[in-house]
Amino acid sequence: MAIEFVAGPNVEGLAISEAVRADGFVFLSGLAGFGPDGEIISGGVVAETDRIMLDLKDILARAGLRLSDVVRVSVHLRSATDLDAFNDAYAKYFPKSKPARIATVAGLLHGGLLELEVIAHGPKPAQQEEK
Amino acid sequence: MAIEFVAGPNVEGLAISEAVRADGFVFLSGLAGFGPDGEIISGGVVAETDRIMLDLKDILARAGLRLSDVVRVSVHLRSATDLDAFNDAYAKYFPKSKPARIATVAGLLHGGLLELEVIAHGPKPAQQEEK
Amino acid sequence: MAIEFVAGPNVEGLAISEAVRADGFVFLSGLAGFGPDGEIISGGVVAETDRIMLDLKDILARAGLRLSDVVRVSVHLRSATDLDAFNDAYAKYFPKSKPARIATVAGLLHGGLLELEVIAHGPKPAQQEEK
Repeated sequence: MAIEFVAGPNVEGLAISEAVRADGFVFLSGLAGFGPDGEIISGGVVAETDRIMLDLKDILARAGLRLSDVVRVSVHLRSATDLDAFNDAYAKYFPKSKPARIATVAGLLHGGLLELEVIAHGPKPAQQEEK
Repeated sequence: MAIEFVAGPNVEGLAISEAVRADGFVFLSGLAGFGPDGEIISGGVVAETDRIMLDLKDILARAGLRLSDVVRVSVHLRSATDLDAFNDAYAKYFPKSKPARIATVAGLLHGGLLELEVIAHGPKPAQQEEK
Repeated sequence: MAIEFVAGPNVEGLAISEAVRADGFVFLSGLAGFGPDGEIISGGVVAETDRIMLDLKDILARAGLRLSDVVRVSVHLRSATDLDAFNDAYAKYFPKSKPARIATVAGLLHGGLLELEVIAHGPKPAQQEEK
């Protein structure tokens, strides 16, 4: 099966795909708490996490997947002091199907407090197969 | 094939799985040198690496895999000065089948000196298939 | 299918494989701007990016793949100030098939300005299948 590059509205003009599907796996580009105006939203780590999860659900939906199809999440936090607040915000999105997770403190290339890397897995939706 | 979330004893109560299997791949959560008491063991980078490898072998065994099934390792070191000692400790666990590896210096969310991300690949054990 | 460890000339004597294939996926070890003499080349982030892309194409070719088979790239930059120059250098290698991408600022274990993690996907070349 060929690789499928998902363009998506958030990466127009950039040298990246929103997500790339290969076999049953979907690899997403880094997710940060950007609002509709292209700026990191205010409100701190919980607000950014909620915003990222909204985007994540949208991107997964465009690939025919859901949060329960997420296999692995890598979290890059700007500050270790945000870990507990992040954990609480994150946990409510994965009540049963809990992805493998790695978390580190890293420098970020935007003004946000965190960035998420996501790998998901699931079948391609039927309407896309028919193309 | 559905995703399979491996709970494991080390992540009880946390919003993560010890490992997640999808197709033939097994994605593990970040591994650090935690001892049985839940604290990072003392002894430095070699002791922590040995401890992580013990845990890694246990987790892989629960998924029916071995160290020679590890495909890729990402190493996050707290300090670049530990690289040589880590390399020596690491190399003896992969004498023949050497995973692809990435190593960076990163902030860690625990008191340890390193954290490992691991992706493995191999067949599901037969007794699990029968479930 | 068994895992296949690709040795490669750049990792002789090290505890890593140049790349590891499992199913259709190829996981590469971290790529930095090392020249033929084993030292990071001079010239800055654009020169290093170009050098990394040369190596990447070579390694992919040894696995029967091309740049358009790259699924995901993680970029670790030493300094956020190199992002724009890196982006421009990077974009010209992926004019159409754009990998999912994550970029962070991280400490590096060599003297270079960046390191790339790459996952690719594609069929095994026919001559290797016959082995």
